Parts: sequence; structure tokens; C-alpha cells
Amino acid sequence: MEKYTCDVLVIGGGPAGGVAALTAKSNYPDKEVIVIREYEQQLVPCAIPYIFGSTLGSSEQDLASCEQGMKIGIKGLIGTVEKVDINTKTAYTSTHIIHFDKLIFATGSTPFVHSSLFEESYLEGVFTIPKNKIKIDALKAYADQKEKIVIVGTGFIGIELGMEFAEAGKEVTIIGGSRHVLKNAFDAELAVEAEHIIDDAGISLQLGDYVDSIVSHEGIATGVKLCSGKIIEADVVILATGYKPNTALAYEAGLKLARYGGIWVDEYMRTANKDVFAVGDCAARRDFITREPSKVMLASTSAAEGRTAGNSLYKLQYLKGFNGTIAIFSTVIGSAVFSSAGLTQEQAACAGVDIVTGSFEGMNRHPSTIPGALKQSVKLVAMRHSGQIVGGQIIGGVESGEMINLIGLIIESKLTIYSLLSLQVATQPLLTAAPTSYPLVKAAEIISRKMDQ
Amino acid sequence: MEKYTCDVLVIGGGPAGGVAALTAKSNYPDKEVIVIREYEQQLVPCAIPYIFGSTLGSSEQDLASCEQGMKIGIKGLIGTVEKVDINTKTAYTSTHIIHFDKLIFATGSTPFVHSSLFEESYLEGVFTIPKNKIKIDALKAYADQKEKIVIVGTGFIGIELGMEFAEAGKEVTIIGGSRHVLKNAFDAELAVEAEHIIDDAGISLQLGDYVDSIVSHEGIATGVKLCSGKIIEADVVILATGYKPNTALAYEAGLKLARYGGIWVDEYMRTANKDVFAVGDCAARRDFITREPSKVMLASTSAAEGRTAGNSLYKLQYLKGFNGTIAIFSTVIGSAVFSSAGLTQEQAACAGVDIVTGSFEGMNRHPSTIPGALKQSVKLVAMRHSGQIVGGQIIGGVESGEMINLIGLIIESKLTIYSLLSLQVATQPLLTAAPTSYPLVKAAEIISRKMDQ
Repeated sequence: MEKYTCDVLVIGGGPAGGVAALTAKSNYPDKEVIVIREYEQQLVPCAIPYIFGSTLGSSEQDLASCEQGMKIGIKGLIGTVEKVDINTKTAYTSTHIIHFDKLIFATGSTPFVHSSLFEESYLEGVFTIPKNKIKIDALKAYADQKEKIVIVGTGFIGIELGMEFAEAGKEVTIIGGSRHVLKNAFDAELAVEAEHIIDDAGISLQLGDYVDSIVSHEGIATGVKLCSGKIIEADVVILATGYKPNTALAYEAGLKLARYGGIWVDEYMRTANKDVFAVGDCAARRDFITREPSKVMLASTSAAEGRTAGNSLYKLQYLKGFNGTIAIFSTVIGSAVFSSAGLTQEQAACAGVDIVTGSFEGMNRHPSTIPGALKQSVKLVAMRHSGQIVGGQIIGGVESGEMINLIGLIIESKLTIYSLLSLQVATQPLLTAAPTSYPLVKAAEIISRKMDQ
Repeated sequence: MEKYTCDVLVIGGGPAGGVAALTAKSNYPDKEVIVIREYEQQLVPCAIPYIFGSTLGSSEQDLASCEQGMKIGIKGLIGTVEKVDINTKTAYTSTHIIHFDKLIFATGSTPFVHSSLFEESYLEGVFTIPKNKIKIDALKAYADQKEKIVIVGTGFIGIELGMEFAEAGKEVTIIGGSRHVLKNAFDAELAVEAEHIIDDAGISLQLGDYVDSIVSHEGIATGVKLCSGKIIEADVVILATGYKPNTALAYEAGLKLARYGGIWVDEYMRTANKDVFAVGDCAARRDFITREPSKVMLASTSAAEGRTAGNSLYKLQYLKGFNGTIAIFSTVIGSAVFSSAGLTQEQAACAGVDIVTGSFEGMNRHPSTIPGALKQSVKLVAMRHSGQIVGGQIIGGVESGEMINLIGLIIESKLTIYSLLSLQVATQPLLTAAPTSYPLVKAAEIISRKMDQ
């Protein structure tokens, strides 16, 4: 057994753990920081779909670097922590005993598989998308030999995977139980535009029909059977049906879990034990607006949580702005970028938020004769009484990836449509919409007029 | 003489006047709104440089549309207003008499030519860049026949013009009196990167040397003589040395002008006479941070001012967020985007602002193996005591055009580096930097560490 003693132990080296360790070491350079992770090579999680098409082409192109951490003196260990004793402040792997003063759980998430498919998920030809290079390589090697790919799940990962496989020449079917794709981020009228692009890429979209079972022959998956009775042939079945917090270790250590299974934490990512923190997908989250528990899992949220924990280990340094997840997403489908922040109109209705929406469609360059100019649609969701912006959705070009961060900050800062009406922005012909019709401002104008009525 | 009576008269149909009229008519649909402008065809001002290269290729590709205004019932007139009588509320052209209740000056700006070059600016082959299709067409027709283009001025318009002419195969020299290009928007270490790209495009950059005179032969410009004595041959000399407010009409009508010649206005764009407004480049501006008079002229600022006036004609509807210009710019130089908001480090020093800066360099996609990933540099300028962000500069890809708007909102909302440390953002491999090293957050971290010292 190798024995270690450190000030700060981080279990997990994904975005949350990595940023927590970097921030801790930068803030408290005299403290000994150890990160223990399961595998030598870690994938950049959000880019996993791009391994399967020509964008990256292999998992070797999607490796996260530990260079920065090593440079500032963080110690890295490889191993699986099997037990944590919070009272004696000790963590155990099969070969390490690590004594710590502060502990940060950053154990991430694992693929969620519906219980009805649990047994079938072990059939040959059935895969999930864990953040694990060995398993991703296995899927890639298997799929490279096959033709018919069936993806279950119409979230970002399902769609991104499907588009990459289609681009690689596979016959792709995507199956979703909901009526539209990307339902957690887009209202129907925007989702329909994504569906058109997916159709145009030659992908068969099966919406509003759940998977009943996976069909197999001699232990090898041959298709999926839908609740409607329809059978879709498959050489490869990929279950992209979400993730669940990986919290067995924390639970066994006696930490309290919240609804949806995440480790309960306060605003500074502290558990009930002030020496123990949890960050990233293994930590419980609440929605910024509704204050309900949230299932949203995003690397960007994880990184922000890691930063908060790293800053707050030994003292609170500033009031945290980040009280609940805003769920800011972006994805690329064909040549269009789809971005979303906060609540959709439908989510707001379900949560009982009294809202007004404003949608504006223009061009992402000006004048519209600029080569490569694309349609740019923005929908804003505001509270009817206060005018506070609680959600936004964009379809546009590459610029949407940062424009949604502008909407995110507007939500986070609790700004209203009135701040938007006189917002100062930079506009440039090759980069943005026209100054006279900047879409966030125009959508806010539409809302302000509806509020007057 | 044609006689008209209206509720709202807007003089000028550029971004400020256009938005003022649209907002007025949308807010007060029962009011009769007239816009009077000098020319039937108006150019989109920011895209004028792109007329000279292949991006647009002709001024016909750069026309502003009046369609939206006509659709909602705004009346358009063509004519030059020669006199305004504010007491009798009447405007006169050579062929129109227009009675109004509310008046909005949106008379824009005209090229500024240094007095020492004033006479020579009338030589054949010497041009400025007015927002006037006839004159722009004349320059294009003239330059199309010539080889050697000399541009005086290293602001955005000078650089954009130079790059377009170079791309069109011309021999281009750009002359600037300051030590670096784009000095109002970038500190030296970032400006140098722009200079490398300009060099690489085959343009001769002459910096730190003012123009003494324009050399001519038989009334035709043949070159420019610099203060150093150097003579640079030219077939075409373009003076891109800024703009001045076009306020003769307002001055003759008895309105007060501010320093730098703009019409004095309050926060709601009202002159001392509450029935008379001024918006856009003809109105005086102050800097958001230093509160000093500002010479910044941007279509986006103009549009925001037009919107404020249009909203505030008959009643104040909301507190205006826009108290002073933040000067948010973007431009494209080669394949890099240069964006700036607020004060540079040098400007802050000149204005006596006690600041700390933080610079971070990463990649604009993640992992960095994503095809097309570019270097992305962000510099933030914060007040040493409050931590409030007062400026930001970015070099990156297309996404910078909206990322600078995020910095703009941070400045406008008076947010601090502490808001940035836990900022929620969307990150996506094909669109943004990594969640673990989002550059605004990293630059804020660097500042926070400097503040601790």
C-alpha cells in the first residue's frame, strides 16, 4: 500500500475536479493538492460525439491535458477510490491510502439506462456513452464495421452522435419518446427547424415513440421494438438517454443525497461536513429560476462549481453569483447553431411562471448580402410582471455560441427587457446582425409591446 | 412648395434616424411620422469598406432598406433641410415646408479632414469616406483604374479599407501618426498582432509619421509627403481620419453644442428644448466610465440612441441604462477578429483610473484539435479597488463579435471580477473555448490574484 498525506484530495479528474484542483492550488499554493482519477487518459467529455465522424475522427484527438496542473505542482494519482472514511479523513483504493484535510468529490456521472432496458443493455451491439476512453474506443471499433446505427435519445448527445455517424456514411435512426428533439432546451417551433436539418442529413427520426425492448438474436442486438409495435433494424444500438450522478462512494461515506441522487451541497459546494465538498455532475443542482431540483449536467456548470469549491476551501472570498443552474447549452446541427439558456416557454408554463415571449427573426450579418449570412432567430422568455428575462433560445451561426452567454448573464444578473432596450452592443458587418435590428433588442421590444397590452 | 404636417419629424435616415422613426411609430402608432433624408439610396455605413474588395464588390450590395418603415406607415421624403425654425416648429427644404410637433435631429457626421490638408483634399485623386453612395461610387470607379492606394488613418475604417484594396490586388500603404494601429481600442501588445496580419497581407504600414502634405502634379495627387520627409507615391489618397458631427443646421436653429461639436442632449436624447431631440453621430456623447466628452462614433450606439429617443418622445417609459458610450467595437483583420469594449489600459492610465489588468491566451475551440481552432486572447481591465470591469480586448475568431458584447454588458451592469469568477456560460467544442479555461473567467482569476498581492 502506498501512503499519501495531503491537504486537499480531489476524487475525479473531469472538468469539475480539474478546475477545483487548479483553483485550490492557485489560491492556496502552500497546500498539497492530490487529484486521483481512474484512468491515465481522460476524454474531453463534450467532444465525444465528434470522435465518430471526421471532425476529430479518433479518441486520441479528444484527450484532456493535465499539463497545467502538473506545472503548478498538483500531484496526480491513478486509481479507483473504493472507500472514504470522513471521520478519520482517509481515502482507500486497492493500492493507496490517502490522508486528507479537505476532500472534494468530483466523481461525475454515468449513463442512465431505463430499468426496462437494463438487462438488454448488456447485449452485444448495445452501447452507452460513458466518459471513458476504453468504452468509447470499443464502440467506435464496433460501429466502424457496421452499417445500421440506432440511437435512442433526442438530447444533444443523441443528435450530435447521429449527425456524425450520418456524415460518416452510416444508416442512422434516432428514436425519441417526446414529440420533438431537444425538448429540454427548445420550444417546438425551434426544435422543428433542427428536425428539418436532421431529416436533410438522411437520418430517420422516430419521434413520440418510446423503445419497448431491444430485439436480439443469439445474444447480439438486431434492432429495437417501439411501443407502437414498429421494429427498427440495427447493427448497433446506442442508448443516449441521459446520465445519473455517480454517488455510491459518497453515499457509503454517509453523505446526504438530494432528489435525483446528487450529493447535497450548499451554494459554496460544501456538504453538511464543512471539510467535504462536491462539485460537478455528482453534486445536486437546483434550477436558477424555479428553484426546483435540476437534472441538467453540463461541463461548463461543473467547471464553475469546481472553481467555487477551489476558492472556498479555507475561506469564503466573495458572494457567489451562481445560485442554481441556468442550463446554458449550445450545439451545432448541420450549418446551424442551436443555443438555449434558462427556461423554455413550455418549461415556464409547467413550472407556473407567468411569462410573455418575444421572437425575432433576422440575419446574422449585415447587410444580408454579406457572403455566408445566415438566418438568425431569437426567442426571449420574460416574466410578465417584472419584465425579468428567464430564458432565451437562438438559431444562428457560430456567433450564437457566445450570444447565448450574453443571455445567460442577463438571466444571472436578473436584468429586465428594459436593460435590453438600450443595451450597448458592438455590431460589425462580417460578425453580427445590424445595429438597427440586433435580435436581443428586437425580441425585448416585442415583449415590451405585449406587456403594454 | 409642398406642405406637410406631422407629429414627429426625423431629419436623417441613417441608423439613428431610422431606428428613432421605427421606434416612435411602433410606440405611438397614431402619430404621423416623417423621415426626411438627402438621398433615395442610403448605404449601410459599417459595410462601406467591403464595397472595395470582393466581399460586397459594389455599393449596390450595401443598400439599407426602408421597407420596414414604409410597412408600418412611416412617410419618407427626399430633400435637404436648409432651415429649422424651432419656435414655429417648421422645417424647410428648397421644395418642402414641414410642420412638426416633435423634431429629431439625426444628421450624422461628415469626414474630418485636418485643416493643414483641407485645401489639398480637393485635388483630383484625393477622397474621404462619406456615407454617400455617389461619392463612394466615384472613389470606386477612380480606384478601379489605379494601382497605388495610400490610406491616411489607422482606425478601423483605414485598416478595413486597406485590407480590402490589398485583397483586390492594389499596392496599399497605410499611414498613421500614432505608434500603433487601432490605438483607441487596443493596447500595444494586441495592436502589434494586427500589424503582423496587415504586413502579411502585403500592405506597407507607415506608423509614427504624420502626413505633412499631399504631393500633386497639374491638380492631380501623386503622393503624400510625411513629416519625416519621406514621400510615398500614390494614385489615390484616401483620408480616413475620422468624422465630425454634422450640426450646422442644429446650430443655426439655436441649439447648444457640446465639446467636440455634437448637439447637447440629456440621457433621454432631449435637447434643452423638450420637443427637440438629437440622436446618432450629430449628438454629443460622454464616455461611460470617465464621464469625459467622447468622440466615439458607432452605428450600434446610434441605433441605441435612436431607440431611446423614439421611446421617450411623449413620455419616459423606463430608466435608461445607457448613460455614456462604452465604445464597443469589432473588426476583422485577415482571419482574426479584433474586438474591444470600454477603456484600454493606456486610456485608463491617461484618465487617471487606478486599474489592474489580466490577460489570458487559449484556444477558441476545445479540444484544440478541433479543425479551424484559433488562438483566443482576452485582456480585461478592472478597477483596483472595486474590482469593477472597465474594459476588455479580444483577439479570436468570429465568436469574438458576440463575446465582446458580453464584456460590454459586464461593464454596463457595473459587474466585478467576482461575478465573472462564477459566471455560467455555455461551452461547446465547435463554438467556444473549453469550460475549464473560458477566457473571461481566466482573465478575471488573474486579476483577482493580482488584487490579493
